[in-house]
Amino acid sequence: MVALAFLPELWTEILIPVCAVVGIAFSLFQWFIVSRVRVSGDQGASSSGGSKNGYGDYLIEEEEGVNDQSVVAKCAEIQTAISEGATSFLFTEYRYVGVFMVFFAAIIFVFLGSVEGFSTENKPCTYDDTKTCKPALATAAFSTIAFILGAVTSVLSGFLGMKIATYANARTTLEARKGVGKAFIVAFRSGAVMGFLLAASGLLVLYITINVFKIYYGDDWEGLFEAITGYGLGGSSMALFGRVGGGIYTKAADVGADLVGKIERNIPEDDPRNPAVIADNVGDNVGDIAGMGSDLFGSYAEASCAALVVASISSFGINHDFTAMCYPLLISSMGILVCLITTLFATDFFEIKAVKEIEPALKNQLIISTAIMTVGIAVVSWVGLPSSFTIFNFGTQKVVQNWQLFLCVCVGLWAGLIIGFVTEYYTSNAYSPVQDVADSCRTGAATNVIFGLALGYKSVIIPIFAIAISIFVSFSFAAMYGVAVAALGMLSTIATGLAIDAYGPISDNAGGIAEMAGMSHRIRERTDALDAAGNTTAAIGKGFAIGSAALVSLALFGAFVSRAGVHTVDVLTPKVIIGLLVGAMLPYWFSAMTMKSVGSAALKMVEEVRRQFNTIPGLMEGTAKPDYATCVKISTDASIKEMIPPGCLVMLTPLIVGFFFGVETLSGVLAGSLVSGVQIAISASNTGGAWDNAKKYIEAGVSEHAKSLGPKGSEPHKAAVIGDTIGDPLKDTSGPSLNILIKLMAVESLVFAPFFATHGGILFKYL
Amino acid sequence: MVALAFLPELWTEILIPVCAVVGIAFSLFQWFIVSRVRVSGDQGASSSGGSKNGYGDYLIEEEEGVNDQSVVAKCAEIQTAISEGATSFLFTEYRYVGVFMVFFAAIIFVFLGSVEGFSTENKPCTYDDTKTCKPALATAAFSTIAFILGAVTSVLSGFLGMKIATYANARTTLEARKGVGKAFIVAFRSGAVMGFLLAASGLLVLYITINVFKIYYGDDWEGLFEAITGYGLGGSSMALFGRVGGGIYTKAADVGADLVGKIERNIPEDDPRNPAVIADNVGDNVGDIAGMGSDLFGSYAEASCAALVVASISSFGINHDFTAMCYPLLISSMGILVCLITTLFATDFFEIKAVKEIEPALKNQLIISTAIMTVGIAVVSWVGLPSSFTIFNFGTQKVVQNWQLFLCVCVGLWAGLIIGFVTEYYTSNAYSPVQDVADSCRTGAATNVIFGLALGYKSVIIPIFAIAISIFVSFSFAAMYGVAVAALGMLSTIATGLAIDAYGPISDNAGGIAEMAGMSHRIRERTDALDAAGNTTAAIGKGFAIGSAALVSLALFGAFVSRAGVHTVDVLTPKVIIGLLVGAMLPYWFSAMTMKSVGSAALKMVEEVRRQFNTIPGLMEGTAKPDYATCVKISTDASIKEMIPPGCLVMLTPLIVGFFFGVETLSGVLAGSLVSGVQIAISASNTGGAWDNAKKYIEAGVSEHAKSLGPKGSEPHKAAVIGDTIGDPLKDTSGPSLNILIKLMAVESLVFAPFFATHGGILFKYL
Repeated sequence: MVALAFLPELWTEILIPVCAVVGIAFSLFQWFIVSRVRVSGDQGASSSGGSKNGYGDYLIEEEEGVNDQSVVAKCAEIQTAISEGATSFLFTEYRYVGVFMVFFAAIIFVFLGSVEGFSTENKPCTYDDTKTCKPALATAAFSTIAFILGAVTSVLSGFLGMKIATYANARTTLEARKGVGKAFIVAFRSGAVMGFLLAASGLLVLYITINVFKIYYGDDWEGLFEAITGYGLGGSSMALFGRVGGGIYTKAADVGADLVGKIERNIPEDDPRNPAVIADNVGDNVGDIAGMGSDLFGSYAEASCAALVVASISSFGINHDFTAMCYPLLISSMGILVCLITTLFATDFFEIKAVKEIEPALKNQLIISTAIMTVGIAVVSWVGLPSSFTIFNFGTQKVVQNWQLFLCVCVGLWAGLIIGFVTEYYTSNAYSPVQDVADSCRTGAATNVIFGLALGYKSVIIPIFAIAISIFVSFSFAAMYGVAVAALGMLSTIATGLAIDAYGPISDNAGGIAEMAGMSHRIRERTDALDAAGNTTAAIGKGFAIGSAALVSLALFGAFVSRAGVHTVDVLTPKVIIGLLVGAMLPYWFSAMTMKSVGSAALKMVEEVRRQFNTIPGLMEGTAKPDYATCVKISTDASIKEMIPPGCLVMLTPLIVGFFFGVETLSGVLAGSLVSGVQIAISASNTGGAWDNAKKYIEAGVSEHAKSLGPKGSEPHKAAVIGDTIGDPLKDTSGPSLNILIKLMAVESLVFAPFFATHGGILFKYL
Repeated sequence: MVALAFLPELWTEILIPVCAVVGIAFSLFQWFIVSRVRVSGDQGASSSGGSKNGYGDYLIEEEEGVNDQSVVAKCAEIQTAISEGATSFLFTEYRYVGVFMVFFAAIIFVFLGSVEGFSTENKPCTYDDTKTCKPALATAAFSTIAFILGAVTSVLSGFLGMKIATYANARTTLEARKGVGKAFIVAFRSGAVMGFLLAASGLLVLYITINVFKIYYGDDWEGLFEAITGYGLGGSSMALFGRVGGGIYTKAADVGADLVGKIERNIPEDDPRNPAVIADNVGDNVGDIAGMGSDLFGSYAEASCAALVVASISSFGINHDFTAMCYPLLISSMGILVCLITTLFATDFFEIKAVKEIEPALKNQLIISTAIMTVGIAVVSWVGLPSSFTIFNFGTQKVVQNWQLFLCVCVGLWAGLIIGFVTEYYTSNAYSPVQDVADSCRTGAATNVIFGLALGYKSVIIPIFAIAISIFVSFSFAAMYGVAVAALGMLSTIATGLAIDAYGPISDNAGGIAEMAGMSHRIRERTDALDAAGNTTAAIGKGFAIGSAALVSLALFGAFVSRAGVHTVDVLTPKVIIGLLVGAMLPYWFSAMTMKSVGSAALKMVEEVRRQFNTIPGLMEGTAKPDYATCVKISTDASIKEMIPPGCLVMLTPLIVGFFFGVETLSGVLAGSLVSGVQIAISASNTGGAWDNAKKYIEAGVSEHAKSLGPKGSEPHKAAVIGDTIGDPLKDTSGPSLNILIKLMAVESLVFAPFFATHGGILFKYL
């Protein structure tokens, strides 16, 4: 007799969609609350004076002298410009990427269909040839459909995130007039809208897809979940272009705006006289928001697919235990509920009253969600798993207990928290690493860069140990399934992670709008405080993204190896070692492309901004308006053009290596790019974050030490600005894109594994 | 009947030492020629006017107005100061490292002795237990002796190199008065002294050691060559401290001198008013010369040991075919002869008449030596190898033909040339990559850094493919023995490589001496031209060092795995994958340490230089002398103190991992640090070299484009100086030390392999 999970199948069928719908409903509810802040001047005027802006609060006294109506109108105008710029860019981007996706969907169908020569007859299953499975052609067709679904969901995740962020930024600015707590809560709720919408819709689409595919596949779960992996590939391919394109866009604008505005013309950041300022603010939304959303959605989709595909050939799949099979989805469902409770701690249970409470409030979100989730995982593991089961382990079946799987998920969850805190330590200016970097600005930009690079290198040590321990524990307990669920554990609190992550760019934009609308400097101080906390949470978010990418990528790698019929990946063979070496080189190649792209695009931007300052009379005096549209166009054109080569490098490498050199070399490439890429990604993100906050540390001047380095415009501050500018492409373009590189190559290899196993390695076959 | 090599054993016994002695004699002859340039003012005065300075040439007309006698005396004085500073530093360094070496020698003896519980009885051989081998205690004792011999030879290589360089620098300056060709030939001959002395003495000591050990070991070649590996470990451990200590010394002084001198006080490089100028010039000799000498000696020793240890368990060792066994030494012997002929092309067959002929002359050295060596390898492979033999391949014996081994050596040799040329392309300002970096200085230091980093990342692509192809070919033909001889192929022209490499810092020093002695700017222009060519050859030398380190390290890794009894290093096991991940992190940890060390030491230097400028009256006016000694002391103290943590990281990691986690995890660590370290090493070296030459490109202003960026002191030039300063620790401290990291960990693992195989992995044993 086979032991099944405690939870009946029917309950599982109901619980997962219910949790997803609850998440979406919660998200819409938060949106509704945010929408009650009015940005339209007319409506504000039509309501009674006591309840203007939706609430009964009065604006702070300092604003009395300012014509409130004109400020609101100005904010609305800027918000519209940013939103339209971002929408127009994303549509352009999606149009180009859409062509690529259609082309790639065709490749998937043709390559996978060719495995059995486009035969429509059933065939013996791959892992159990006594049974009959659906034809390879069916898997080709369903993989293609899943790929398109993943791509569309990823696009929606990024696009809706951008829409919410550009909806919330001006509202945050306006609320900042009432108090820092009010502004915080608007920004945070908007982040939560994005977090919950993305986590819940990702889960729901995946769940529905599985159930619809099941109608055709029936009991052939091996084929079913093999086809489902297309969903992960679709999600991640879109994320790649989103991250790279958005990253180049935002940093070309940012670097260009800073180089002329801050360094040459000595005007403040986000000054409306700077022609690149709208492009810079648009960039925050298309890069940090839409890119990050697509990225984390991709991680989530891939981790789920990796777990499902391994589970389908383990006892869960063999025994057709649907509840146990859906364990990864149950973890995610539980995650939505846990994050929902966690959110209430920030929005309802406590109230932010002072600037210094912001960063602890955000950090508490991470701690609370992790603590509650630990209990949640225990519950899911207890009801959703049989007490003992077997997991496929490269040709053999390994016996696993449910408490062991619980530990696998937990180790991932807690490793994420550790990575988050280490990232915070190395990038927040409350601690000595960033203060040391700031101090090194005394002797100029060169020492600042040397110290910053050293800081980034050093910051990889603990995260790598945390990831290594997670891998060791989860791999030892439950092979690649363990690693996949550890990744899911790290991503289970994704709704909270995304909320605090999206909060950063929203606050950044709010500050920009305050500056552009000419609001009081006290408003700007408040938005700056929100933004500084956001800088650190953005770094934490990147830490999560990288850590989970490492685990996801390893899990996908394991699934690929299993599917390709490889039982060992032996470093002591020439095919593997050269793959390892070349794989470890790919992140450098990729980074060289993206950094050079940002550099070239920034040069063009600098020339345009200089041209406008030189040729438009009255621009510096503020009497003439700059030509924002040309700068937006430069960023758009550059990013669309420049995202193609790095995108092709990542998308084509697995195909070329697998087809010409075969699965052993491809395994080496995947392992090499994983172990090398994760280091560069972490160090690049943290170096950039540290430089940014070292500059903010000098600007804010809150301690004696910081005051001795400032004020703005001092020599150390200028050195800090140079460091910040260098860090921009590192932390927002090349660093975070590397996560996608390592994940995407792995999931692509997994999807094409049947093809490579059949037709791959032609170079060695005929040599 | 067993086929033996064509060359009789007696001939081999004679040929190898004869070649070594010829190399030493040639080196002494070059030294003698260099010594004929007189730097002592008195002797110059005592000889007749027509033949002063050893030659019959007259000095160029421009020098007429200068009091020749005082210039010579001044050069002699500066040379003495540099030489004494360097000698004093090296003695201090060796004293500290000596303590460590004694301690480590004790560890080797105790750990290896404990393998058989310090038994003095013979035991069954490891690879063939039907035979009897010498006790483990004997291997422990002989390994310790070999370790000490390797360390002493490495110290001598570095020390003698430094002595020659400091002997030649002022002579090069003085000869520059006669013409650029004369100066070139002095610098080049001095480099050749070092190259030949090092290559020949390394070979001779190794050869004598093998023959002496053989008296005890007799027919137990397995034990004999296992003990010999200690030689490689000794050589590389010293090299590590030499590179790291010397690297910190030179860059602390260089960065400190530049930050205050060039940027704050606006005085030229090597200006005698700068208090750090002597320390800077001392640094070139202890870092670039002594450090590089020890490093390449280490590579050579390790490659030979790796080849010998694999050969001893292949048919060469089993059949006791001494000539075939000595194939690696025969390759090196042939290399000495080939390099000797090659040197004559630069010193005797052709003459340098103009500045633009310098760089081609140096490049031709590489091409000529590679071309002749190809024939040399063919000869050695034909006479020194049986036509067919077997090579140990992780538990099995693989049949190899002599022409296959010829190809293995050749592929390494030619890959070295390709890496050299790619390095030149990316670091010479004659090509577009460096010119693009220089151009990016228009928009400031930030874009310069972004473009420079991108250039370094991009420059790894072709070298990695070259290394990967070498590995694939040599590994496929002759397993790890093939990889080892490929490394030896790359290193076979080491005498020429070192000659053109040492030429660089000698020219750099010569320029410094010209500046300090207040010689005419036309002299300085000549030494600058020599130096610019030297910068590129230094980068080529680093490329060779890294490429060979990658091959050597892989060969040692293979030998370690064989000795530790591991047959597969499967990435799909938790022990290996976590090793791979952590191993890939180690180069970052190491770089963080060394870069931070340079940064901190430079900060101290900056403070001292500033203090002297502020407190010594008349220093800026040139009426008072600075306190050079304090700056020398700061560099010395900082480098001695700061070299210990990174040194311990590298030396202790294999011991800790092997002892606690066992050989599988250690294998993962070695593979991870290899594939990750080689990328950082190449990119760091090339980025630094490119920034240095981008600055020189702007300063020299030879094209319209370069002129538009200059002159010295312009904004683009200032941005270029910042890049150059950032590149200093990258290209001269952390980058080149990483070669040693990857080689040293591998050779250490090999030496301790018997210990790890017996007592290692205690954590997993008891968990």
